[in-house]
Amino acid sequence: MTLKKEALHMHQEKQGKLEIQAKVEVKNAYDLSLAYSPGVAEPCKAIYENPETVYEYTMKGNMVGVVTNGTAVLGLGNIGAAASLPVMEGKAILFKSFAGVDAFPIALDTTDVEKVIETVKLLSPTFGGINLEDIAAPHCFEIEERLKAELDIPVFHDDQHGTAIVTLAGLANALKIVKKEMKDLKIVLNGAGAAGIAITKLLYSYGVTNMIMCDTKGAIYDGRPEGMNKVKAGVAAYTNIQKEKGSLSEVIKNADVFIGVSVAGALTGKMVASMNKDAIIFAMANPVPEIDPKDAKAAGARIVGTGRSDYPNQVNNVLAFPGIFRGALDVRAKNINEEMKKAAVEAIANLIIDAELHEDYVIPSPFDLRVAPAVAKAVAKAAVQTNVARIKVEQK
Amino acid sequence: MTLKKEALHMHQEKQGKLEIQAKVEVKNAYDLSLAYSPGVAEPCKAIYENPETVYEYTMKGNMVGVVTNGTAVLGLGNIGAAASLPVMEGKAILFKSFAGVDAFPIALDTTDVEKVIETVKLLSPTFGGINLEDIAAPHCFEIEERLKAELDIPVFHDDQHGTAIVTLAGLANALKIVKKEMKDLKIVLNGAGAAGIAITKLLYSYGVTNMIMCDTKGAIYDGRPEGMNKVKAGVAAYTNIQKEKGSLSEVIKNADVFIGVSVAGALTGKMVASMNKDAIIFAMANPVPEIDPKDAKAAGARIVGTGRSDYPNQVNNVLAFPGIFRGALDVRAKNINEEMKKAAVEAIANLIIDAELHEDYVIPSPFDLRVAPAVAKAVAKAAVQTNVARIKVEQK
Repeated sequence: MTLKKEALHMHQEKQGKLEIQAKVEVKNAYDLSLAYSPGVAEPCKAIYENPETVYEYTMKGNMVGVVTNGTAVLGLGNIGAAASLPVMEGKAILFKSFAGVDAFPIALDTTDVEKVIETVKLLSPTFGGINLEDIAAPHCFEIEERLKAELDIPVFHDDQHGTAIVTLAGLANALKIVKKEMKDLKIVLNGAGAAGIAITKLLYSYGVTNMIMCDTKGAIYDGRPEGMNKVKAGVAAYTNIQKEKGSLSEVIKNADVFIGVSVAGALTGKMVASMNKDAIIFAMANPVPEIDPKDAKAAGARIVGTGRSDYPNQVNNVLAFPGIFRGALDVRAKNINEEMKKAAVEAIANLIIDAELHEDYVIPSPFDLRVAPAVAKAVAKAAVQTNVARIKVEQK
Repeated sequence: MTLKKEALHMHQEKQGKLEIQAKVEVKNAYDLSLAYSPGVAEPCKAIYENPETVYEYTMKGNMVGVVTNGTAVLGLGNIGAAASLPVMEGKAILFKSFAGVDAFPIALDTTDVEKVIETVKLLSPTFGGINLEDIAAPHCFEIEERLKAELDIPVFHDDQHGTAIVTLAGLANALKIVKKEMKDLKIVLNGAGAAGIAITKLLYSYGVTNMIMCDTKGAIYDGRPEGMNKVKAGVAAYTNIQKEKGSLSEVIKNADVFIGVSVAGALTGKMVASMNKDAIIFAMANPVPEIDPKDAKAAGARIVGTGRSDYPNQVNNVLAFPGIFRGALDVRAKNINEEMKKAAVEAIANLIIDAELHEDYVIPSPFDLRVAPAVAKAVAKAAVQTNVARIKVEQK
């Protein structure tokens, strides 16, 4: 059977991938009197009198809403809410499988930013956290920013921060091999979508000052006359300080690192050859990377990562989001801040000890079961230290 | 341990009552490639190309949203969205336990009718049906009516129709015992809330024309100068044709049936004594009925039902909603119409064969496991016959 047929069969066999399960049994009138009327009135009254106890008496504290509007699903684009459901269910089973986090898909039938924001706010009482997913840029930025400001539960746009965190973890380990430091790097990023913007911000917080982001019109710089928007202008404010102009092939010269979140074939061997010695390439276009790792290596790259499972150094968000929400939920965090993201970066990177580290192993495997617990622990600790945790110790 | 302590303990022990479970395993890269990227793109594309296949490839077809805004929770009133969650989780486990229906709580933080309607419409792609729950009258009527008109999935306000269906089933069986017919009855209803209005409508559709509904101001009649609203005016248009005025104690004289969805103690022995021979009493105020069944019997009532599990003839919605949604989902119904509700009434009533029928057994036990499958089958059949089914045969 082809992958296509097998994937369709698997989704059809059980009518999707998620189900709801009761954690308590209702076998007789007594069970019913506890789980439902009249006993259920007691936790209701307790929560009414003390709202924080909703974390004790309900599923909220372990429940993440996986929210999309279906505008940027995989590489398929704006296919709408209903057609995005298989991805959201998939995300939910990864949350559960990797970190025991309950997650439920909320696919919203609207492309209106205000409606997405209002809807998520209205339905937030049910959830201990919100994972935004597959919402197109630039809407995704405003939606995340506003919801972070207006809700008292974590809001996390995985396409931005999950990718950024895993990329940074891989980069941190790659730098140990090539013996370079963040502050000394020249980094060129290709692709100004959700992931690219988030990676740039996170790199900046790690002390990288020499960065150039490119889009289809070439290098982005402050005051570029065409193809700019609010988000790109924000990036231009702290990158490409020397206002280098030109195409990717021009600005990539003497770069130490290339980070691609763009399209297949965007990077050529010739460009790689023009980079500095010990070049590091993260070519994360899906399903086909910006350059084939073999071609990159042949052109002189020392370390190459992609989004694919069939090459070394897979940048896979599943290394980040399950553990991040696990940690945030464990301490009933009010949000996921920069310190928590950095804690995740370091937890992922440090799982590979120096003795094991090599060019083809700078990122742990997605199925390394140590990752989620390590990330959760580090994230929970950072939440407590930065005073966004409602409780100081894990409940699980 | 008291019931209160035990109920709190039960809710706290596992942090609520619901969890999300994967129906497929993700143990290795191959599983991941089917359930998530890249395989998941196939069902996404299939749904994009043919929207009806969302019922095949996703959880939608077995998933009901249990939607509330927390404005009329149990007897506790408007306690808000978060405090209503234990009830919504309870409802969800009943859906699953009794009929294998997956149900998920959506507790909305708003009392605004338009916002509830818009939010449910926006999040409807995830669900195969919507169960409205514990939304205060009269808002519940408009919300249900509008959503039924604007969505192409079943919308069902259980507090109205669940109660009405089970009451009618009990009444139908009670009439077999006392050998009276619907069309000949005089029925007095006390309580003009969600359940009372729905019971009145359903009775009317069964040919009952001699009905009087009372509220705290006494009998409702067309043109009553005080305490009226749009909904009561609607009831007055087809009930109390002779415009009887006065209190419950006055209009109940010579009634055959009393139906109470009001408050403890609203019905006295003296009132029961003024009713016709073989009086039938459904005193469903919770947790304390309008009259104690023993007092009702002593005053001459022949058949008495309540909402309680510790008396005979328990009117419990769990006899209706799981099977109704099971049947509707099995044929991918576009809505739940009057014929489907009547099919449920008859399925519930007919589970008790004539030889078993007696005064203290006119309604099946909530734990009679034959009920939900029988209701589901009847409801699915009615959906097909009335052309609201997307498919003609059950998929389960």
